[in-house]
Amino acid sequence: MSTLKDYTNKLNSLKFGEMYNNDFFLTWEKTFDELQAVWTVADALRYLRENNISTRVFDSGLGISLFRDNSTRTRFSFASACNLLGLEVQDLDEGKSQVAHGETVRETANMISFMADVIGIRDDMYIGKGNAYMREVSQAVQEGNKAGILEQRPTLVNLQCDIDHPTQCMADMLHVIHEFGGIEKLKGKKVAMTWAYSPSYGKPLSVPQGVIGLFTRLGMDVVLAHPEGYDVMPEVENVAKKNAQQSGGTFTKTSSMAEAFKDADIVYPKSWAPFAAMEKRTDLYGNGDFDGIKALEKELLAQNAQHKDWACTEELMKTTKGGKALYLHCLPADITGVSCKEGEVDASVFDRYRDPLYKQASFKPYIIAAMILLSKFKNPASLLEQLESKATPRIFNK
Amino acid sequence: MSTLKDYTNKLNSLKFGEMYNNDFFLTWEKTFDELQAVWTVADALRYLRENNISTRVFDSGLGISLFRDNSTRTRFSFASACNLLGLEVQDLDEGKSQVAHGETVRETANMISFMADVIGIRDDMYIGKGNAYMREVSQAVQEGNKAGILEQRPTLVNLQCDIDHPTQCMADMLHVIHEFGGIEKLKGKKVAMTWAYSPSYGKPLSVPQGVIGLFTRLGMDVVLAHPEGYDVMPEVENVAKKNAQQSGGTFTKTSSMAEAFKDADIVYPKSWAPFAAMEKRTDLYGNGDFDGIKALEKELLAQNAQHKDWACTEELMKTTKGGKALYLHCLPADITGVSCKEGEVDASVFDRYRDPLYKQASFKPYIIAAMILLSKFKNPASLLEQLESKATPRIFNK
Amino acid sequence: MSTLKDYTNKLNSLKFGEMYNNDFFLTWEKTFDELQAVWTVADALRYLRENNISTRVFDSGLGISLFRDNSTRTRFSFASACNLLGLEVQDLDEGKSQVAHGETVRETANMISFMADVIGIRDDMYIGKGNAYMREVSQAVQEGNKAGILEQRPTLVNLQCDIDHPTQCMADMLHVIHEFGGIEKLKGKKVAMTWAYSPSYGKPLSVPQGVIGLFTRLGMDVVLAHPEGYDVMPEVENVAKKNAQQSGGTFTKTSSMAEAFKDADIVYPKSWAPFAAMEKRTDLYGNGDFDGIKALEKELLAQNAQHKDWACTEELMKTTKGGKALYLHCLPADITGVSCKEGEVDASVFDRYRDPLYKQASFKPYIIAAMILLSKFKNPASLLEQLESKATPRIFNK
Repeated sequence: MSTLKDYTNKLNSLKFGEMYNNDFFLTWEKTFDELQAVWTVADALRYLRENNISTRVFDSGLGISLFRDNSTRTRFSFASACNLLGLEVQDLDEGKSQVAHGETVRETANMISFMADVIGIRDDMYIGKGNAYMREVSQAVQEGNKAGILEQRPTLVNLQCDIDHPTQCMADMLHVIHEFGGIEKLKGKKVAMTWAYSPSYGKPLSVPQGVIGLFTRLGMDVVLAHPEGYDVMPEVENVAKKNAQQSGGTFTKTSSMAEAFKDADIVYPKSWAPFAAMEKRTDLYGNGDFDGIKALEKELLAQNAQHKDWACTEELMKTTKGGKALYLHCLPADITGVSCKEGEVDASVFDRYRDPLYKQASFKPYIIAAMILLSKFKNPASLLEQLESKATPRIFNK
Repeated sequence: MSTLKDYTNKLNSLKFGEMYNNDFFLTWEKTFDELQAVWTVADALRYLRENNISTRVFDSGLGISLFRDNSTRTRFSFASACNLLGLEVQDLDEGKSQVAHGETVRETANMISFMADVIGIRDDMYIGKGNAYMREVSQAVQEGNKAGILEQRPTLVNLQCDIDHPTQCMADMLHVIHEFGGIEKLKGKKVAMTWAYSPSYGKPLSVPQGVIGLFTRLGMDVVLAHPEGYDVMPEVENVAKKNAQQSGGTFTKTSSMAEAFKDADIVYPKSWAPFAAMEKRTDLYGNGDFDGIKALEKELLAQNAQHKDWACTEELMKTTKGGKALYLHCLPADITGVSCKEGEVDASVFDRYRDPLYKQASFKPYIIAAMILLSKFKNPASLLEQLESKATPRIFNK
Repeated sequence: MSTLKDYTNKLNSLKFGEMYNNDFFLTWEKTFDELQAVWTVADALRYLRENNISTRVFDSGLGISLFRDNSTRTRFSFASACNLLGLEVQDLDEGKSQVAHGETVRETANMISFMADVIGIRDDMYIGKGNAYMREVSQAVQEGNKAGILEQRPTLVNLQCDIDHPTQCMADMLHVIHEFGGIEKLKGKKVAMTWAYSPSYGKPLSVPQGVIGLFTRLGMDVVLAHPEGYDVMPEVENVAKKNAQQSGGTFTKTSSMAEAFKDADIVYPKSWAPFAAMEKRTDLYGNGDFDGIKALEKELLAQNAQHKDWACTEELMKTTKGGKALYLHCLPADITGVSCKEGEVDASVFDRYRDPLYKQASFKPYIIAAMILLSKFKNPASLLEQLESKATPRIFNK
């Protein structure tokens, strides 16, 4: 694709009316047309920016970010997306303002949203909590909007929860689409979403879950590989199975990293904590049992250490399709001999894929911006065309 | 009112020239025309935003916020107001930069204000300090402006001090005006500003003081009710008395919540700390006597606990005018059985008034924006008309 | 100068093509024409703002700030500069996101820069680190831009490092140029950059180094005065010597404050830590030797205390040219009897120069904005002229 017309033609061929005035929680709640609309708008926004055309569709308005966890990359991606569209970011720092559940969520959600066009939330720490919290916030602002308290309905964008990481996985996939030359080229491609050893504890499940929940939509052969005991949420495995059936792909599981890598077109080796352990941790936190948490952490690190052979080595990479599968990672990776003694990936593998990995990450701001735009504008194709013909320069007199 | 012309006609009937290039510290320093100008501009700004018309009157410029206390709601209200007008917020976080008094105030005030069009300060913790500090900052930047250091004079907006909470109380009143159908409908209405029990310690006096200092301007019968020993600042009571005389209303005191609620049109039950105790705390802080503060806190909690019967119950609500007085609160409220075991208000009362309470809060960003606009523009009526005829959309192609 | 044409004529007489798409690390890496371009653009931007003409050349885009040290003034100067040009500031708070060296720097630099037009860094704490770190970040984003990861190359602006403080010293000099009536009036003027006593420990060397590295470019007689043992980096002294030879000025050293002040046209008395001690501290930190650091600190405070007579007193001021040399300081100053018992300057001297000192500081946002603009626009003279003729008001309908 090379002109804006290509993107708007594509948009005009898709049905995504349900996205208008709606949220983005989980990729598998969206139709395939809707996912394609996100990728298409993301590409179109990037095209306009590369051509120094402003995409500032908001003259004023706030984008609220709420992070329950430290975050640089997601914070900057959200800030970049908002800025690209003309929204100013306000962080709701929970250190500054205790946010609890129930009545308080409803009230705070409304109090911060008088001029909020979008709310981005990252809440990935506790099983059963993050996604539920986002829906609670969305419910509250929808009611506020209906009751005439809020003049607009703020769109909720899931910036990572306990179940899915849609902005990450949609960016991952847009990268894959570009690398392979189009959505239609992906049918039958083998994807290895595999666990990998890391010396750290308790990495979220949202990436592997998001990947098997999304990549199975495109007719790919998705293999989930992990050592015994590192299962992801069974609900999401069921989603992946159903997706594969519908898209004409497959979803299989193995406990052998070698088997997963064998002839793979794409590999995504990454550490995560076992679902059962995350659930246990959630309960321990709920009970305020900090000794229990420490004990669990020790146990998990010991368990991890039994699987140091789960690493993306040069040897394994050689077994992939033509020896050159596309290596994906959400970053930061634990690189053997660089960021840790033994980690997820050999330094030479990481080095070879650094530029593509950074490029993969570079799609995220556009994905977030596309999600916002599709929720705020009924006719994005016409909007994009008007932006192009108006042609306000992003940088004046460039 | 339903067209912009109504608002600008109203503005043209008012005298508020003194507000230009001036600060907003206390409502009782402003003429009644000036207060009406604030409400009118606030309504006009809301009208324009609801009609998707941009009110971005600043192309660049900073709004500085300085909070001496944690704050989500005020922070977001100020940020929303600035964003609505086109100003970018910069927080002066005192954790990051120690701000002291005297020489340092003068210097810091200038150093942060080179491109500041407005400075919003919340400093409500210590009696005799907050409002004085704001005036010190204002003095410093006025001198800086006169000396040619600052190209503009930053407007100071009191976001809550030890004496008044003008942005809150002006928003409260705009809500009341809308609920009762106009300023002229408020004469003779009975307002019960009453203390209520809360299990927490040391809530500021600025709301009850602000309410009796403002509501007495409108010819209302304002009753201040609290248990023995919970007096507010005597200076502000004197202001309320004088106001009532001039406006044709009344200002009375009682130590019976029932008496205050009897036939009231409006009730505002809310906890606060006794003025004398706040003064004592200020002295203890001044002397660094942290043991003394702990002892005082314990003492006050015990004192509070003797007045758990001061609660806005369904029974009390039934005694108000027609059983349906307008219930006001600045939020967050201590709700019995929800946010605490025993608190300021019954859950069922709060539930019934939730939407109006949130609506009450929703006026604050517009009030702040109106205060800024009235200080920055000599002829706001003409400005608003130009904005309407220019009609730059807030959201492009909406 | 009084019209924009004067500034653009001046610009058209200068050669500064190398500044385009480039960084600003050290003043002595820039030609004298390039420095003059910065001052000229800074003056032009101020002229436009004073005439209520918008200089918002970016419709969207981010300015990233990264401070390794607490900072109010530099933070606000950078925020003001970005806002003036239309960029939104995002702070990379290292508390929120650990930034290390090596691989991590490369990755983080790219991850935060997808939509960053400028990155401002302050890193002045450790000898041999700060400037090196900035160059590492710049290298990383240049590579990212070449590899197609970043659509633009973010400009790096040194907001203070271990070697130079270019935004401060360029602002200092612009103040001097204005006070003396032009660059051509500065030849032969005597400048006393002298150490002064402060009761605090370990103030950075970047200001005295920046001053001797810059003021020697203008044909001035620059004297560096300090007690024995308070040497600055020898490399920078060599820079100053070379500069003086080329510009027709002089660079001399003395260990007598009186000698430096004698007949001086400009005095800049300010505390700093000895270079050798800063190097030692850097090593102690590197080894995690916190006891060693404490011991060093104690030693240095004792050493400082031997030189309390190094103060800018009224007596010393009388010995300057006509008794009225221009007193400079980067602020905040340690004022005797005000901010400390004994400090860098007499209260009466400081009082007399307060307005000029604040004015000196007021140039910094414009200097930073000029550095950004000169890196982003190939033809700034034409740009400025277009801004003037377009004449978008900074404040609407002002």
